[in-house]
Amino acid sequence: MKTGKEQLSKVSERILPHIHRTPVLTSSLINEVVGAEVFFKCENFQKMGAFKMRGATNAILNLSEEKQAKGVVTHSSGNFAQALSLAAKSLNVPAYIVMPDSAPEVKKAAVRTYGGQITECPSTLKDREEAANRIQKETGATFIHPSNDINVILGQGTAAMELLEDYPDLDHIFCPVGGGGLIAGTALAVKHFGKNCNCIGGEPLEADDAWRSLQSGRIETNKYANTVADGLKTQLGDQNFPIILENVEEIIRVAEDEIKSALRLIWERMKIIVEPSSAVALAAVIKEKERFKNKKIGIIISGGNVDLTNLPF
Amino acid sequence: MKTGKEQLSKVSERILPHIHRTPVLTSSLINEVVGAEVFFKCENFQKMGAFKMRGATNAILNLSEEKQAKGVVTHSSGNFAQALSLAAKSLNVPAYIVMPDSAPEVKKAAVRTYGGQITECPSTLKDREEAANRIQKETGATFIHPSNDINVILGQGTAAMELLEDYPDLDHIFCPVGGGGLIAGTALAVKHFGKNCNCIGGEPLEADDAWRSLQSGRIETNKYANTVADGLKTQLGDQNFPIILENVEEIIRVAEDEIKSALRLIWERMKIIVEPSSAVALAAVIKEKERFKNKKIGIIISGGNVDLTNLPF
Repeated sequence: MKTGKEQLSKVSERILPHIHRTPVLTSSLINEVVGAEVFFKCENFQKMGAFKMRGATNAILNLSEEKQAKGVVTHSSGNFAQALSLAAKSLNVPAYIVMPDSAPEVKKAAVRTYGGQITECPSTLKDREEAANRIQKETGATFIHPSNDINVILGQGTAAMELLEDYPDLDHIFCPVGGGGLIAGTALAVKHFGKNCNCIGGEPLEADDAWRSLQSGRIETNKYANTVADGLKTQLGDQNFPIILENVEEIIRVAEDEIKSALRLIWERMKIIVEPSSAVALAAVIKEKERFKNKKIGIIISGGNVDLTNLPF
Repeated sequence: MKTGKEQLSKVSERILPHIHRTPVLTSSLINEVVGAEVFFKCENFQKMGAFKMRGATNAILNLSEEKQAKGVVTHSSGNFAQALSLAAKSLNVPAYIVMPDSAPEVKKAAVRTYGGQITECPSTLKDREEAANRIQKETGATFIHPSNDINVILGQGTAAMELLEDYPDLDHIFCPVGGGGLIAGTALAVKHFGKNCNCIGGEPLEADDAWRSLQSGRIETNKYANTVADGLKTQLGDQNFPIILENVEEIIRVAEDEIKSALRLIWERMKIIVEPSSAVALAAVIKEKERFKNKKIGIIISGGNVDLTNLPF
């Protein structure tokens, strides 16, 4: 699979009719706090509220008509479950979503609203994979991994592509690191569309598997992952790790109070609702702000799906 | 004081260098809920987080240089205190703010951040007016009322003017009704810049003084005002009431649960932070949605300054 400039441009063109080209916001107060110019690519305004819509859409569009007719399947309890359901619905494709039976009812309801057909199973990875395998065999549906799939990765990269189209002179683009789909796609976009730009990840200290993976050169896992950034507990995969290893400049780790404080800054000053995961990237910039003084910095705001009755403030 | 088309255009031109031209957002889900096309003018993204910045700026710019040098004074514990402080600071004008000693510390801190000089007093209207009078005598500062001042009213009207510039074919513009400055300005803008457009107010049933004032033809007050929309507890004044009486089509009253439900819809679906007062206008549209089916509706989102530790969810 090619991951070059031309390939990324094709992906961007292909998914654009099905997604929002999200706005870029700035805040003079946050610029003052950071001592740099910060440009927020607001994927919280994306369809279904997160960048995952991009990768899900691209992965489905990449299938033959015959395969599309048989549907897609994934296991996820987070934004990708909703993204695949909505993208599939928009393209008239069946979507089978394997969710742990322990997943919050509100998340199951969201998947159902978007037309996803839920199969519940115990919450171990083995149970999830078995359930997904069974659905593949029964329906002929194609399995699409939430982050470790090259078409998903290329789709996620289109957010940074659009940001660089709007602001070609960015020095750095920061994004949060979870399963690795977003940062791998962002790093590819930066490599092919940036001018002297690099890609930097923000990761919770409490779930620093990607930081450790960059040190050791192999995929590390989290024993515990006690972080408010609940979208970032997952680990890298064999598709995205080589891209990250080659193209990501560095990963900066941040503590829980730094994440919460950045989250509050975005909510209070920008008046936008973003997930704690999104604040991890800004927290990383603020933590090392002396190094980024007077730079032009892009930040991918990953999403805005939060439980308003359970906020970390 | 003229309040015609030319006057409004001059005001808009005069304040534009000092304020944000705020974006207009839409939500396909909210359009589905309402059964109409809704265009949200996002004054929560305005400087200091509310439309009050427009009126405060215009009122100060309207003063002679000599008067500006002596400063401005108001009594407010809400957004106007912050707006007058920031507008004055930007224009190098001293701002004296009378606040009740019972006002939350966070609001006093915000005024100080924007450079306002606070005088505390007991929270009765009489005490506030006395304190403001004393400051006027001592400093020569000009008193600027938060809503009952024609220059403030004209400034507030520029939000609807911009909205009509962007969407000239709106059938209705809804805004919340508190002290009457926003709705009076909005109604003037609709009269002079709308095509077959009218201005409708949304008001909490719990503080329906403006609705009763339209019925009785004189300024009514609220005995109790037990509403989550804390910006809307104030009453109309002799400057804005005649404008409202002549130019506002109607006021629709909404219950507290309707306000909270509209607020939640905006937060969850649009991913933007707005004050409960802002949700009153959407709640009014939803309440009477059968009447507004398939119409094009503008809504002035008044502001986004909320206490994140004390949310009504």
